[in-house]
Amino acid sequence: MSIIYMDNAATSWPKPPEVSEAMVNFMKKTGANPGRSGHRLSIEAGRVLYEAREAVASLLGIKNPMQVVFTLNVTEALNLALLGLLEPGDHVITSSMEHNSVSRPLRYLEEKGVELTIVQCSSTGHLEPQDVRTAVRANTRMIVLTHASNVIGTLLPLKEVGNIARECELIFVVDAAQTAGCYPIDVSELNIDLLAFAGHKAMLGPQGTGGLYVAESVKLSPLKRGGTGSRSEFDIQPEFLPDQFESGTPNTVGVAGLGAGVRFILEQGVETVRRHEVLLTKRLLDGLNEIEGVTIYGPLQAEEQAPVVAFNINGLEPSDVGFALDRRYGIMTRVGLHCAPWAHRTIGTYPRGTVRLSLGWFNTTQDVDYVLEAIAELCRQGHHGFVEY
Amino acid sequence: MSIIYMDNAATSWPKPPEVSEAMVNFMKKTGANPGRSGHRLSIEAGRVLYEAREAVASLLGIKNPMQVVFTLNVTEALNLALLGLLEPGDHVITSSMEHNSVSRPLRYLEEKGVELTIVQCSSTGHLEPQDVRTAVRANTRMIVLTHASNVIGTLLPLKEVGNIARECELIFVVDAAQTAGCYPIDVSELNIDLLAFAGHKAMLGPQGTGGLYVAESVKLSPLKRGGTGSRSEFDIQPEFLPDQFESGTPNTVGVAGLGAGVRFILEQGVETVRRHEVLLTKRLLDGLNEIEGVTIYGPLQAEEQAPVVAFNINGLEPSDVGFALDRRYGIMTRVGLHCAPWAHRTIGTYPRGTVRLSLGWFNTTQDVDYVLEAIAELCRQGHHGFVEY
Repeated sequence: MSIIYMDNAATSWPKPPEVSEAMVNFMKKTGANPGRSGHRLSIEAGRVLYEAREAVASLLGIKNPMQVVFTLNVTEALNLALLGLLEPGDHVITSSMEHNSVSRPLRYLEEKGVELTIVQCSSTGHLEPQDVRTAVRANTRMIVLTHASNVIGTLLPLKEVGNIARECELIFVVDAAQTAGCYPIDVSELNIDLLAFAGHKAMLGPQGTGGLYVAESVKLSPLKRGGTGSRSEFDIQPEFLPDQFESGTPNTVGVAGLGAGVRFILEQGVETVRRHEVLLTKRLLDGLNEIEGVTIYGPLQAEEQAPVVAFNINGLEPSDVGFALDRRYGIMTRVGLHCAPWAHRTIGTYPRGTVRLSLGWFNTTQDVDYVLEAIAELCRQGHHGFVEY
Repeated sequence: MSIIYMDNAATSWPKPPEVSEAMVNFMKKTGANPGRSGHRLSIEAGRVLYEAREAVASLLGIKNPMQVVFTLNVTEALNLALLGLLEPGDHVITSSMEHNSVSRPLRYLEEKGVELTIVQCSSTGHLEPQDVRTAVRANTRMIVLTHASNVIGTLLPLKEVGNIARECELIFVVDAAQTAGCYPIDVSELNIDLLAFAGHKAMLGPQGTGGLYVAESVKLSPLKRGGTGSRSEFDIQPEFLPDQFESGTPNTVGVAGLGAGVRFILEQGVETVRRHEVLLTKRLLDGLNEIEGVTIYGPLQAEEQAPVVAFNINGLEPSDVGFALDRRYGIMTRVGLHCAPWAHRTIGTYPRGTVRLSLGWFNTTQDVDYVLEAIAELCRQGHHGFVEY
């Protein structure tokens, strides 16, 4: 049975062949520690890192590649943004569609004395910018927002909220886990101060990569301190980018792959990627809409969402549906709460969860049609189809 | 010109072919996010992670593989150990041979009210265990020690200091960046509570891997919070290992490579690796000792050190020597302060630094002889040899 992979919101697969090639090339020919030693392999490793920074900067409208900080994953980038800025007594505004990578650090900070407002979104995940403005207080320091829900794909109004942040002189933090690489983003246009990205999702890099764009104006404290290969003579952390936030040996091999992934996207053009994924999402939504017994969650408008579609089959448990899709049809999905209990409460699917189909550049219309057929078959069979399990 | 790589203390190179193979295999055949989705690829990714935990546990005498936490690098592991435990008012004891990955977090904690004692080592990097015992106070909470100096290789007396830690009921943290993979370590025998390891040095994994062994008795706070794929229904961090400390998508492809690297070492036997490297270190020390104009730093006893040798050529700058070794002879070294200003002050080479030769499993006696010949030639030429630059 061939694999139909629709779990791209967790991690994208497959990757362009260039990604593995860049990684193997690094492992075999370069291998060295960047920015530490002065020899030719070390200099070459430094070049690999820098070229990846350039690619990411180009993708996200970042002027200076040195403002791109690489981290283990987008979760680390978000922790760095939140813990590196918020102090007891500060107020922070967020949405009810956030992933645990935002909600868990915020709940922790709340315990330490940070005040938190969670602006309620609609059951389709839409956020009303005016509700954000209303939540602003004298001690508000930051707005942190996901760009697109990882559960139902809804795009949040970054432009409007970015304007509010600028007017009210608040720091604007964006979780672009689901959009960087598959949706056009320009950090300056959107007034974003800190943007966290996942390297291994739509940016098509390997797992172990992510990062944070840090605007020059933001004074952030590091999460970690240690060897940076720079200012070795001091036992205090250097205060320039990106070294301040990249202590210890970086994941150079992973970043080599990420650079190749992002360059692949830049070659296609991010608008082309977006068009392809909107087309597939529309086909999927339209098809699901016609299957009796399916409930779809989210905006149900491909243009208003990232290529993520959540659904349930009436009368069946999401976990049973996911299991059957995998076992009988070779379709990879993610079921349950998707590390986003706030979002599931917002859309009314807590604690049962949903089945999530998430599309990527390498999915085809044939994949979508096959998945629709499989879901229709499961619906027709209903409970009877599960007797064998 | 072929490359003679003697910068293994920064990162090991080359790696066993199995490492790249495991990584490519993961990229091409598995690719999925471990512990998140329930489908077959996700389960397979979880298995890759677990098998790497088992290999690391086996290498380091750790009973339960779930006590192995993977991090971006050893620096993150050390930050987790230090920041996750030390509170204002606590006292911590360390040595004067530490890397900036220990000294920079400790200086930061000192600013926050943690008391710090740096026990002075000798100019060969030796630590007197009695000096550690003398430093213990009523509020002492932790001893943190490097296992071997990254500058001159000196092995610190873990056994004796571990006993002191146990007797005084202190938490014992070990930085095994230079020894995990090339020197036998048993965390129980040495009374180690937290052991930080680098995946990409002697453990032969790729960059982007490292980790922390966490004893069951230690109550550590995480550095980062976020999605763990577990207890998705809660917006607070789960409190079990390893999930508590592994928020966000792990570097599964890197850990796949690390698992392969560690299994390679287990197949050779870590004692065999150690014997090979002692032999090479001895040959290097003996040879350098015979070259007029060379000053060697450290114990000058291969059995008492990790395979790291620091030297200078009288009258020449370390950076010039490193440059010439690279350019003329294809020999990769690391010059300068090696992110360890405390250690260089201790051995009397601050701020000039040294040239460091660090050996690995794939170095041969031929490599050592070639390097010795190159250094002898540079010494014979002295300043005259550098006119061309």
